[in-house]
Amino acid sequence: MKQIYTGKTKDVYELEDGNFLLKFKDDVTGENGVFDPGANTVGLSIEGAGRAGLKLTQFFFEILKEKGIPTHYIAADIEEATMTVVPASVFGQGLEVICRYRAVGSFLRRYGKYAEDGQPLDGFVEVTLKDDDRQDPPISKDALHMLGVLTNDEYDTLKTLTQQISQVVKDELAKKDIELYDIKLEFGRDANNHVLLIDEISGGNMRAYKNGEYIEPLELEKMMLQ
Amino acid sequence: MKQIYTGKTKDVYELEDGNFLLKFKDDVTGENGVFDPGANTVGLSIEGAGRAGLKLTQFFFEILKEKGIPTHYIAADIEEATMTVVPASVFGQGLEVICRYRAVGSFLRRYGKYAEDGQPLDGFVEVTLKDDDRQDPPISKDALHMLGVLTNDEYDTLKTLTQQISQVVKDELAKKDIELYDIKLEFGRDANNHVLLIDEISGGNMRAYKNGEYIEPLELEKMMLQ
Repeated sequence: MKQIYTGKTKDVYELEDGNFLLKFKDDVTGENGVFDPGANTVGLSIEGAGRAGLKLTQFFFEILKEKGIPTHYIAADIEEATMTVVPASVFGQGLEVICRYRAVGSFLRRYGKYAEDGQPLDGFVEVTLKDDDRQDPPISKDALHMLGVLTNDEYDTLKTLTQQISQVVKDELAKKDIELYDIKLEFGRDANNHVLLIDEISGGNMRAYKNGEYIEPLELEKMMLQ
Repeated sequence: MKQIYTGKTKDVYELEDGNFLLKFKDDVTGENGVFDPGANTVGLSIEGAGRAGLKLTQFFFEILKEKGIPTHYIAADIEEATMTVVPASVFGQGLEVICRYRAVGSFLRRYGKYAEDGQPLDGFVEVTLKDDDRQDPPISKDALHMLGVLTNDEYDTLKTLTQQISQVVKDELAKKDIELYDIKLEFGRDANNHVLLIDEISGGNMRAYKNGEYIEPLELEKMMLQ
Protein backbone atom coordinates (compact mmCIF):
# COMPACT_ATOMS: atom_id res chain seq x y z
CA MET A 1 0.00 0.00 0.00
CA LYS A 2 1.09 3.50 -0.83
CA GLN A 3 1.22 6.44 1.58
CA ILE A 4 -0.62 9.36 0.00
CA TYR A 5 -0.80 11.88 2.85
CA THR A 6 1.03 12.68 6.07
CA GLY A 7 -1.15 14.56 8.53
CA LYS A 8 -0.56 16.10 11.92
CA THR A 9 -2.31 13.27 13.75
CA LYS A 10 -3.00 10.74 10.97
CA ASP A 11 -1.32 9.23 7.89
CA VAL A 12 -3.33 8.08 4.88
CA TYR A 13 -2.52 5.09 2.66
CA GLU A 14 -4.16 3.83 -0.52
CA LEU A 15 -5.08 0.14 -0.42
CA GLU A 16 -4.92 -2.17 -3.43
CA ASP A 17 -8.71 -2.42 -3.59
CA GLY A 18 -8.96 1.37 -3.97
CA ASN A 19 -10.06 2.05 -0.40
CA PHE A 20 -8.01 4.20 1.95
CA LEU A 21 -6.40 3.25 5.24
CA LEU A 22 -6.07 5.87 8.00
CA LYS A 23 -3.29 5.28 10.52
CA PHE A 24 -4.03 7.06 13.80
CA LYS A 25 -0.82 8.41 15.35
CA ASP A 26 -0.03 9.15 18.99
CA ASP A 27 0.82 12.75 18.03
CA VAL A 28 -1.74 15.26 19.25
CA THR A 29 -2.15 18.92 18.39
CA GLY A 30 -1.07 21.55 20.86
CA GLU A 31 1.46 24.23 21.58
CA ASN A 32 4.59 24.15 23.73
CA GLY A 33 3.93 20.61 24.89
CA VAL A 34 0.36 21.36 26.03
CA PHE A 35 -2.52 19.42 24.43
CA ASP A 36 -4.93 21.77 22.58
CA PRO A 37 -7.42 20.17 20.16
CA GLY A 38 -7.90 23.51 18.42
CA ALA A 39 -4.22 24.10 17.71
CA ASN A 40 -2.76 23.85 14.23
CA THR A 41 0.59 22.40 15.32
CA VAL A 42 1.59 19.05 16.78
CA GLY A 43 2.36 19.75 20.40
CA LEU A 44 3.34 16.41 21.86
CA SER A 45 3.02 12.66 21.61
CA ILE A 46 0.92 10.71 24.11
CA GLU A 47 1.23 6.92 24.11
CA GLY A 48 -2.09 5.31 23.22
CA ALA A 49 -3.69 8.56 22.00
CA GLY A 50 -4.11 7.22 18.46
CA ARG A 51 -5.83 4.04 19.58
CA ALA A 52 -8.07 5.89 22.05
CA GLY A 53 -9.16 8.32 19.33
CA LEU A 54 -9.86 5.46 16.96
CA LYS A 55 -11.93 3.57 19.54
CA LEU A 56 -14.25 6.51 20.09
CA THR A 57 -14.38 7.17 16.35
CA GLN A 58 -15.39 3.54 15.74
CA PHE A 59 -18.04 3.83 18.45
CA PHE A 60 -19.70 6.85 16.81
CA PHE A 61 -19.25 5.73 13.19
CA GLU A 62 -20.92 2.39 13.97
CA ILE A 63 -23.93 4.22 15.40
CA LEU A 64 -24.09 6.53 12.36
CA LYS A 65 -23.94 3.46 10.09
CA GLU A 66 -26.92 1.93 11.92
CA LYS A 67 -28.83 5.18 11.47
CA GLY A 68 -28.05 5.31 7.74
CA ILE A 69 -26.08 8.55 7.98
CA PRO A 70 -23.43 8.54 5.23
CA THR A 71 -19.79 8.35 6.40
CA HIS A 72 -16.57 7.10 4.83
CA TYR A 73 -16.22 4.39 7.51
CA ILE A 74 -15.80 0.72 6.55
CA ALA A 75 -13.98 -0.94 9.47
CA ALA A 76 -11.48 -0.30 12.26
CA ASP A 77 -8.53 -2.32 13.55
CA ILE A 78 -7.87 -1.05 17.07
CA GLU A 79 -4.69 -3.13 17.59
CA GLU A 80 -3.11 -1.60 14.48
CA ALA A 81 -4.71 1.82 15.11
CA THR A 82 -6.04 1.85 11.54
CA MET A 83 -9.41 2.56 9.96
CA THR A 84 -10.44 1.48 6.46
CA VAL A 85 -12.56 4.04 4.62
CA VAL A 86 -13.99 4.66 1.17
CA PRO A 87 -12.02 7.23 -0.84
CA ALA A 88 -13.36 10.76 -0.64
CA SER A 89 -12.15 14.15 -1.75
CA VAL A 90 -12.40 17.19 0.49
CA PHE A 91 -14.21 20.39 -0.51
CA GLY A 92 -11.71 22.88 -1.87
CA GLN A 93 -8.60 22.52 0.25
CA GLY A 94 -10.58 21.36 3.27
CA LEU A 95 -13.35 22.72 5.46
CA GLU A 96 -14.26 22.32 9.10
CA VAL A 97 -17.93 22.29 10.02
CA ILE A 98 -18.74 23.28 13.57
CA CYS A 99 -21.98 22.63 15.44
CA ARG A 100 -22.48 24.66 18.61
CA TYR A 101 -24.74 24.07 21.61
CA ARG A 102 -23.07 26.61 23.91
CA ALA A 103 -21.49 30.01 23.18
CA VAL A 104 -17.81 29.41 23.97
CA GLY A 105 -14.45 29.61 22.17
CA SER A 106 -14.18 31.46 18.88
CA PHE A 107 -17.96 32.02 18.71
CA LEU A 108 -17.82 34.04 21.91
CA ARG A 109 -14.66 35.87 20.82
CA ARG A 110 -16.48 37.00 17.67
CA TYR A 111 -20.04 37.53 18.91
CA GLY A 112 -19.53 38.35 22.57
CA LYS A 113 -21.43 41.60 22.07
CA TYR A 114 -24.61 39.57 21.53
CA ALA A 115 -23.97 36.35 23.46
CA GLU A 116 -23.04 35.51 27.01
CA ASP A 117 -20.35 33.03 27.95
CA GLY A 118 -21.89 29.56 27.89
CA GLN A 119 -25.29 30.69 26.61
CA PRO A 120 -27.22 27.78 24.97
CA LEU A 121 -27.18 27.74 21.14
CA ASP A 122 -29.60 25.65 19.14
CA GLY A 123 -27.23 23.42 17.15
CA PHE A 124 -25.81 26.42 15.32
CA VAL A 125 -23.71 25.38 12.30
CA GLU A 126 -20.80 27.32 10.84
CA VAL A 127 -18.09 26.49 8.34
CA THR A 128 -14.44 27.50 8.50
CA LEU A 129 -11.72 27.13 5.88
CA LYS A 130 -8.76 24.97 6.84
CA ASP A 131 -6.09 27.60 6.40
CA ASP A 132 -3.42 27.79 9.10
CA ASP A 133 -1.95 30.99 7.62
CA ARG A 134 -5.29 32.80 7.95
CA GLN A 135 -6.42 31.32 11.29
CA ASP A 136 -9.12 29.09 9.75
CA PRO A 137 -11.53 31.93 8.84
CA PRO A 138 -15.31 31.38 9.03
CA ILE A 139 -17.01 31.52 5.63
CA SER A 140 -20.64 31.93 4.57
CA LYS A 141 -22.78 29.76 2.30
CA ASP A 142 -22.74 32.53 -0.34
CA ALA A 143 -18.94 32.83 -0.25
CA LEU A 144 -18.44 29.05 -0.46
CA HIS A 145 -20.70 28.96 -3.49
CA MET A 146 -19.08 31.98 -5.18
CA LEU A 147 -15.55 30.64 -4.67
CA GLY A 148 -16.56 27.27 -6.13
CA VAL A 149 -15.91 25.34 -2.91
CA LEU A 150 -19.47 24.05 -2.35
CA THR A 151 -22.72 24.28 -4.26
CA ASN A 152 -25.72 25.68 -2.41
CA ASP A 153 -27.30 22.20 -2.37
CA GLU A 154 -24.13 20.68 -0.94
CA TYR A 155 -24.10 23.37 1.75
CA ASP A 156 -27.66 22.51 2.74
CA THR A 157 -26.81 18.78 2.88
CA LEU A 158 -23.70 19.54 4.93
CA LYS A 159 -25.69 21.59 7.40
CA THR A 160 -28.42 18.96 7.80
CA LEU A 161 -25.90 16.12 8.22
CA THR A 162 -23.90 18.19 10.71
CA GLN A 163 -26.97 18.75 12.87
CA GLN A 164 -27.98 15.08 12.67
CA ILE A 165 -24.50 13.76 13.49
CA SER A 166 -23.91 16.28 16.26
CA GLN A 167 -27.23 15.33 17.84
CA VAL A 168 -26.18 11.66 17.83
CA VAL A 169 -22.93 12.56 19.61
CA LYS A 170 -24.76 14.88 22.02
CA ASP A 171 -27.25 12.13 22.90
CA GLU A 172 -24.51 9.54 23.47
CA LEU A 173 -22.58 11.91 25.73
CA ALA A 174 -25.76 12.74 27.63
CA LYS A 175 -26.13 9.05 28.53
CA LYS A 176 -22.95 9.50 30.63
CA ASP A 177 -24.16 12.85 32.02
CA ILE A 178 -21.70 14.66 29.79
CA GLU A 179 -22.74 17.80 27.94
CA LEU A 180 -21.56 18.53 24.41
CA TYR A 181 -20.71 22.24 23.99
CA ASP A 182 -19.48 22.11 20.40
CA ILE A 183 -18.08 19.70 17.83
CA LYS A 184 -15.99 20.01 14.68
CA LEU A 185 -16.65 17.70 11.73
CA GLU A 186 -15.18 17.18 8.27
CA PHE A 187 -17.00 16.22 5.12
CA GLY A 188 -16.05 15.13 1.62
CA ARG A 189 -17.47 13.84 -1.65
CA ASP A 190 -17.35 10.14 -2.51
CA ALA A 191 -16.78 8.79 -6.05
CA ASN A 192 -20.45 9.53 -6.88
CA ASN A 193 -20.22 13.09 -5.55
CA HIS A 194 -22.34 12.28 -2.52
CA VAL A 195 -21.58 14.28 0.61
CA LEU A 196 -20.39 12.13 3.50
CA LEU A 197 -18.74 12.50 6.89
CA ILE A 198 -14.97 11.84 6.76
CA ASP A 199 -12.02 11.97 9.17
CA GLU A 200 -12.80 11.01 12.79
CA ILE A 201 -15.03 11.74 15.78
CA SER A 202 -12.79 11.60 18.82
CA GLY A 203 -12.24 13.64 21.96
CA GLY A 204 -10.12 16.12 20.04
CA ASN A 205 -13.09 17.06 17.84
CA MET A 206 -15.30 18.35 20.60
CA ARG A 207 -15.66 20.33 23.81
CA ALA A 208 -17.40 18.26 26.48
CA TYR A 209 -18.23 19.18 30.07
CA LYS A 210 -19.38 17.26 33.12
CA ASN A 211 -20.79 19.19 36.11
CA GLY A 212 -19.39 22.37 34.58
CA GLU A 213 -15.87 20.93 34.29
CA TYR A 214 -14.14 20.62 30.92
CA ILE A 215 -13.19 17.02 30.07
CA GLU A 216 -9.83 16.48 28.36
CA PRO A 217 -10.05 14.46 25.09
CA LEU A 218 -8.28 11.38 26.44
CA GLU A 219 -10.37 11.43 29.59
CA LEU A 220 -13.54 11.76 27.50
CA GLU A 221 -12.56 8.73 25.44
CA LYS A 222 -12.11 6.71 28.65
CA MET A 223 -15.41 7.91 30.14
CA MET A 224 -17.38 7.13 26.98
CA LEU A 225 -16.02 3.64 26.44
CA GLN A 226 -15.81 2.16 29.91
CA MET B 1 -33.97 70.18 18.78
CA LYS B 2 -32.29 67.61 20.99
CA GLN B 3 -28.99 65.89 20.28
CA ILE B 4 -29.48 62.15 20.65
CA TYR B 5 -26.21 60.73 19.37
CA THR B 6 -22.61 61.84 18.86
CA GLY B 7 -20.84 59.82 16.19
CA LYS B 8 -17.31 59.74 14.85
CA THR B 9 -18.23 61.66 11.71
CA LYS B 10 -21.86 62.66 12.35
CA ASP B 11 -24.10 63.95 15.13
CA VAL B 12 -27.80 63.10 15.28
CA TYR B 13 -30.59 65.39 16.53
CA GLU B 14 -34.29 64.76 17.03
CA LEU B 15 -36.53 67.37 15.36
CA GLU B 16 -39.83 68.57 16.80
CA ASP B 17 -41.81 66.81 14.06
CA GLY B 18 -40.26 63.47 15.06
CA ASN B 19 -37.81 63.28 12.17
CA PHE B 20 -34.06 63.15 12.73
CA LEU B 21 -31.40 65.61 11.59
CA LEU B 22 -27.91 64.33 10.74
CA LYS B 23 -25.11 66.87 11.04
CA PHE B 24 -22.14 65.90 8.86
CA LYS B 25 -18.86 66.81 10.56
CA ASP B 26 -15.47 67.54 9.03
CA ASP B 27 -13.93 64.78 11.16
CA VAL B 28 -12.92 61.74 9.15
CA THR B 29 -11.86 58.28 10.30
CA GLY B 30 -8.22 57.31 10.17
CA GLU B 31 -5.17 56.59 12.25
CA ASN B 32 -2.22 58.81 13.16
CA GLY B 33 -3.51 61.68 11.04
CA VAL B 34 -3.91 59.54 7.90
CA PHE B 35 -7.39 59.26 6.32
CA ASP B 36 -8.60 55.62 6.33
CA PRO B 37 -12.33 55.06 5.66
CA GLY B 38 -12.11 51.58 7.23
CA ALA B 39 -10.63 52.80 10.52
CA ASN B 40 -12.65 52.87 13.73
CA THR B 41 -11.07 56.03 15.13
CA VAL B 42 -11.27 59.67 14.10
CA GLY B 43 -7.93 60.43 12.53
CA LEU B 44 -8.12 64.06 11.49
CA SER B 45 -10.39 66.90 10.49
CA ILE B 46 -10.53 68.07 6.87
CA GLU B 47 -12.32 71.36 6.14
CA GLY B 48 -15.31 70.76 3.87
CA ALA B 49 -15.23 66.96 4.30
CA GLY B 50 -18.70 66.93 5.88
CA ARG B 51 -20.31 68.95 3.11
CA ALA B 52 -18.57 66.95 0.38
CA GLY B 53 -19.80 63.70 1.90
CA LEU B 54 -23.32 65.07 2.18
CA LYS B 55 -23.34 66.25 -1.45
CA LEU B 56 -22.48 62.80 -2.75
CA THR B 57 -24.94 61.22 -0.31
CA GLN B 58 -27.69 63.53 -1.57
CA PHE B 59 -26.78 62.65 -5.16
CA PHE B 60 -27.19 58.91 -4.58
CA PHE B 61 -30.19 59.12 -2.24
CA GLU B 62 -32.09 61.22 -4.80
CA ILE B 63 -31.48 58.54 -7.44
CA LEU B 64 -32.58 55.79 -5.05
CA LYS B 65 -35.75 57.78 -4.29
CA GLU B 66 -36.56 57.99 -8.01
CA LYS B 67 -36.08 54.24 -8.30
CA GLY B 68 -38.39 53.57 -5.33
CA ILE B 69 -35.65 51.96 -3.22
CA PRO B 70 -36.45 52.61 0.46
CA THR B 71 -34.05 54.92 2.33
CA HIS B 72 -34.37 57.20 5.36
CA TYR B 73 -33.64 60.29 3.23
CA ILE B 74 -36.03 63.26 3.23
CA ALA B 75 -33.93 66.30 2.30
CA ALA B 76 -30.43 67.77 2.51
CA ASP B 77 -29.17 71.25 3.37
CA ILE B 78 -25.66 71.46 1.92
CA GLU B 79 -24.91 74.90 3.41
CA GLU B 80 -25.68 73.65 6.93
CA ALA B 81 -24.18 70.20 6.22
CA THR B 82 -27.37 68.57 7.51
CA MET B 83 -29.69 65.87 6.23
CA THR B 84 -33.27 65.33 7.41
CA VAL B 85 -34.26 61.68 7.67
CA VAL B 86 -37.11 59.53 8.96
CA PRO B 87 -36.37 57.92 12.31
CA ALA B 88 -35.04 54.39 12.09
CA SER B 89 -33.56 51.95 14.54
CA VAL B 90 -30.51 49.91 13.70
CA PHE B 91 -30.41 46.11 13.82
CA GLY B 92 -29.00 44.97 17.14
CA GLN B 93 -26.23 47.43 17.99
CA GLY B 94 -25.50 48.15 14.33
CA LEU B 95 -24.47 46.17 11.27
CA GLU B 96 -22.43 46.98 8.20
CA VAL B 97 -23.44 45.36 4.94
CA ILE B 98 -20.70 45.06 2.34
CA CYS B 99 -21.14 44.43 -1.37
CA ARG B 100 -18.01 43.31 -3.21
CA TYR B 101 -17.18 43.42 -6.92
CA ARG B 102 -13.44 42.77 -6.51
CA ALA B 103 -11.53 40.61 -4.04
CA VAL B 104 -9.57 43.15 -1.99
CA GLY B 105 -9.26 44.24 1.65
CA SER B 106 -10.59 42.01 4.40
CA PHE B 107 -12.16 39.59 1.89
CA LEU B 108 -8.72 38.82 0.49
CA ARG B 109 -7.16 38.65 3.95
CA ARG B 110 -9.70 35.99 4.90
CA TYR B 111 -10.16 34.06 1.66
CA GLY B 112 -6.81 34.56 -0.09
CA LYS B 113 -6.39 30.80 -0.33
CA TYR B 114 -9.28 30.72 -2.82
CA ALA B 115 -9.21 34.19 -4.41
CA GLU B 116 -6.61 36.27 -6.20
CA ASP B 117 -5.96 39.93 -5.45
CA GLY B 118 -8.48 41.98 -7.42
CA GLN B 119 -10.40 38.99 -8.79
CA PRO B 120 -13.93 39.97 -9.91
CA LEU B 121 -16.74 39.05 -7.49
CA ASP B 122 -20.36 39.01 -8.51
CA GLY B 123 -21.88 41.54 -6.09
CA PHE B 124 -21.06 39.32 -3.13
CA VAL B 125 -22.83 40.47 0.05
CA GLU B 126 -21.57 39.98 3.60
CA VAL B 127 -22.61 41.39 6.94
CA THR B 128 -20.31 42.47 9.76
CA LEU B 129 -21.17 43.48 13.31
CA LYS B 130 -20.24 47.02 14.33
CA ASP B 131 -17.99 46.11 17.22
CA ASP B 132 -14.71 48.01 17.51
CA ASP B 133 -13.50 45.76 20.33
CA ARG B 134 -13.84 42.65 18.16
CA GLN B 135 -12.68 44.13 14.85
CA ASP B 136 -16.15 44.18 13.27
CA PRO B 137 -16.49 40.39 12.81
CA PRO B 138 -18.35 38.98 9.79
CA ILE B 139 -21.52 37.12 10.72
CA SER B 140 -23.74 34.67 8.85
CA LYS B 141 -27.48 34.78 8.18
CA ASP B 142 -27.97 31.84 10.57
CA ALA B 143 -26.04 33.54 13.38
CA LEU B 144 -27.89 36.86 12.91
CA HIS B 145 -31.17 35.00 13.15
CA MET B 146 -30.13 32.93 16.17
CA LEU B 147 -28.84 35.95 18.08
CA GLY B 148 -32.08 37.81 17.41
CA VAL B 149 -30.43 40.57 15.36
CA LEU B 150 -32.27 39.95 12.07
CA THR B 151 -35.04 37.61 10.97
CA ASN B 152 -34.33 35.40 7.96
CA ASP B 153 -36.78 37.46 5.89
CA GLU B 154 -35.08 40.69 6.92
CA TYR B 155 -31.73 39.22 5.93
CA ASP B 156 -33.06 38.36 2.47
CA THR B 157 -34.48 41.88 2.07
CA LEU B 158 -31.19 43.38 3.24
CA LYS B 159 -29.24 41.31 0.73
CA THR B 160 -31.52 42.18 -2.17
CA LEU B 161 -31.53 45.91 -1.32
CA THR B 162 -27.75 45.87 -0.92
CA GLN B 163 -27.27 44.42 -4.39
CA GLN B 164 -29.76 46.87 -5.92
CA ILE B 165 -28.25 49.93 -4.23
CA SER B 166 -24.67 48.88 -4.91
CA GLN B 167 -25.52 48.36 -8.59
CA VAL B 168 -26.91 51.92 -8.74
CA VAL B 169 -23.68 53.29 -7.26
CA LYS B 170 -21.57 51.09 -9.55
CA ASP B 171 -23.46 52.30 -12.63
CA GLU B 172 -23.13 55.96 -11.63
CA LEU B 173 -19.39 55.59 -11.05
CA ALA B 174 -19.02 53.77 -14.38
CA LYS B 175 -20.41 56.85 -16.16
CA LYS B 176 -17.22 58.63 -15.03
CA ASP B 177 -15.05 55.62 -15.95
CA ILE B 178 -14.63 54.83 -12.28
CA GLU B 179 -14.85 51.24 -11.07
CA LEU B 180 -16.50 50.32 -7.78
CA TYR B 181 -14.52 47.59 -5.96
CA ASP B 182 -16.66 47.41 -2.84
CA ILE B 183 -19.13 49.44 -0.78
CA LYS B 184 -20.30 49.43 2.82
CA LEU B 185 -23.95 50.22 3.62
CA GLU B 186 -26.08 50.51 6.75
CA PHE B 187 -29.70 49.56 7.18
CA GLY B 188 -32.37 50.03 9.80
CA ARG B 189 -36.07 49.52 10.52
CA ASP B 190 -38.54 52.39 10.22
CA ALA B 191 -41.54 52.87 12.51
CA ASN B 192 -43.44 50.18 10.55
CA ASN B 193 -40.55 47.70 10.79
CA HIS B 194 -39.72 48.08 7.11
CA VAL B 195 -36.06 47.64 6.19
CA LEU B 196 -34.50 50.77 4.68
CA LEU B 197 -31.09 52.20 3.85
CA ILE B 198 -29.81 54.61 6.51
CA ASP B 199 -26.64 56.62 7.17
CA GLU B 200 -24.86 57.96 4.07
CA ILE B 201 -23.32 56.99 0.74
CA SER B 202 -20.15 59.03 0.41
CA GLY B 203 -16.57 58.45 -0.65
CA GLY B 204 -15.73 57.00 2.74
CA ASN B 205 -18.21 54.15 2.20
CA MET B 206 -16.52 52.67 -0.85
CA ARG B 207 -13.34 51.68 -2.63
CA ALA B 208 -13.26 53.19 -6.11
CA TYR B 209 -10.54 52.94 -8.77
CA LYS B 210 -9.82 54.73 -12.03
CA ASN B 211 -7.31 53.20 -14.46
CA GLY B 212 -6.16 50.88 -11.69
CA GLU B 213 -5.49 53.78 -9.27
CA TYR B 214 -7.32 54.07 -5.96
CA ILE B 215 -9.34 57.29 -5.64
CA GLU B 216 -9.35 59.00 -2.23
CA PRO B 217 -12.86 59.70 -0.84
CA LEU B 218 -12.65 63.50 -1.17
CA GLU B 219 -11.26 63.20 -4.68
CA LEU B 220 -14.06 60.77 -5.58
CA GLU B 221 -16.67 63.23 -4.34
CA LYS B 222 -15.16 65.94 -6.57
CA MET B 223 -14.96 63.66 -9.60
CA MET B 224 -18.55 62.48 -9.24
CA LEU B 225 -20.13 65.90 -8.80
CA GLN B 226 -18.25 68.13 -11.23
